[in-house]
Amino acid sequence: MRLSPRHPRYRSLLVRERLAEALRAGVVVPEGLIAHGRGETFDYLLGERSLPSARRAERVAARWLLEAQHPVVSVNGNVGALAAREIARLARAVPGLSVEVNLFHRTGRRAELIGERLRRAGVRNVLGVRPTARIPGLPSDRARVDRRGIYVADVCLVPLEDGDRTEALRALGKRVISIDLNPLSRTSRMADLPIVDELTRALTHIANDAARGRRPRRRPGLTPFDAGGALREALQEIDRRLLRAGRARGR
Amino acid sequence: MRLSPRHPRYRSLLVRERLAEALRAGVVVPEGLIAHGRGETFDYLLGERSLPSARRAERVAARWLLEAQHPVVSVNGNVGALAAREIARLARAVPGLSVEVNLFHRTGRRAELIGERLRRAGVRNVLGVRPTARIPGLPSDRARVDRRGIYVADVCLVPLEDGDRTEALRALGKRVISIDLNPLSRTSRMADLPIVDELTRALTHIANDAARGRRPRRRPGLTPFDAGGALREALQEIDRRLLRAGRARGR
Repeated sequence: MRLSPRHPRYRSLLVRERLAEALRAGVVVPEGLIAHGRGETFDYLLGERSLPSARRAERVAARWLLEAQHPVVSVNGNVGALAAREIARLARAVPGLSVEVNLFHRTGRRAELIGERLRRAGVRNVLGVRPTARIPGLPSDRARVDRRGIYVADVCLVPLEDGDRTEALRALGKRVISIDLNPLSRTSRMADLPIVDELTRALTHIANDAARGRRPRRRPGLTPFDAGGALREALQEIDRRLLRAGRARGR
Repeated sequence: MRLSPRHPRYRSLLVRERLAEALRAGVVVPEGLIAHGRGETFDYLLGERSLPSARRAERVAARWLLEAQHPVVSVNGNVGALAAREIARLARAVPGLSVEVNLFHRTGRRAELIGERLRRAGVRNVLGVRPTARIPGLPSDRARVDRRGIYVADVCLVPLEDGDRTEALRALGKRVISIDLNPLSRTSRMADLPIVDELTRALTHIANDAARGRRPRRRPGLTPFDAGGALREALQEIDRRLLRAGRARGR
């Protein structure tokens, strides 16, 4: 299908095409497409823009990544398909950030393909393609991580993560920054710093904030963040928009 | 992946697996999986059950199908993958109901596969596999219909339809019953009788109501229905649930 840039849904149609291609290439799995659709609805309900509360969360996320001893960003199929460039920019903006491929539906082939996409986008050192450690509390493949990455990380940025894994990371004492458009998801509720925003917007903002904000790391501890307040603001915004839509509905 | 029926998300995981299989079989397209995910979010926000307003809409839908001269149900890839049996039951419950394959991303092969699924589920006469007419106002393939089906229909049941096509059917003077979990979608807003409910629940309810309700057809005209009111009730329900979730969020 040929897309016109003037189509009102141009961006989301383009993203859908990119995912369909990544599916054919074996980078994303069918479940990833369904998950993307779930996110699309929340983005639509949030007005398809970064809320002020999300921007605040992104600024604090940039600081956490700079303040961390071992910051890591976890990359799954959808992130590899949709945001390899943004991940590379983030890695340039945050010195010492590890980039680790971490898949829910893991095959060696998929991990290789995603690693390859990240390298082509400019990520120098991609971890996790051949996992070397396990995190406890998770079944089988989903527990496999890199000994130099998530295994030793103190701060993990997990875009589009599932609730079980977020919980397992928390149980290991790691501080978790999530990017998830669903403010009600277990990931958003479990994360220390939930960012309720679309993947590429969030990563771009964090990279920009980190590039500007480089400064001597403060010790000990991380900048405080009100996770519950951030989620409440996202819910309230959805609510406001629904009420407005309901009122505009007079037939 | 082996699924346990005791898993809290068993049903939705099963549906996702069925869609992933249908994708591999060529019955659904990647865009169909993304659309399914969008619907999942609305179903979740609506509490994953049929609202009283949806049940009312389903009862009126059954009457419209019985009152119509030429009722038709339109079947796309997702409907063929997820609800072939429910479509067959509906066809048994509504005498004279035409079942027509109608695809957004049409190939002859996909139309054949979906026709085959419907026949295996018990639909005697499947229309639309080889389209024989066009409806005006739509580009290319999406306009192709069956001369004995949608082309002559007075009442069209369109589960999971896109807004353009719903609009084109309305412009031809047809009465449109939609099944769409998004109460804000153009399809829901354009339909004469929008049903905001999950596909298989809605089809089962309509079939049950039609099987019970068989009676001499009233002429002229169809039972009245307050479309705007039905959509408002769905929006209000999402709203109530979000507010409740927001309050339960105290950290």
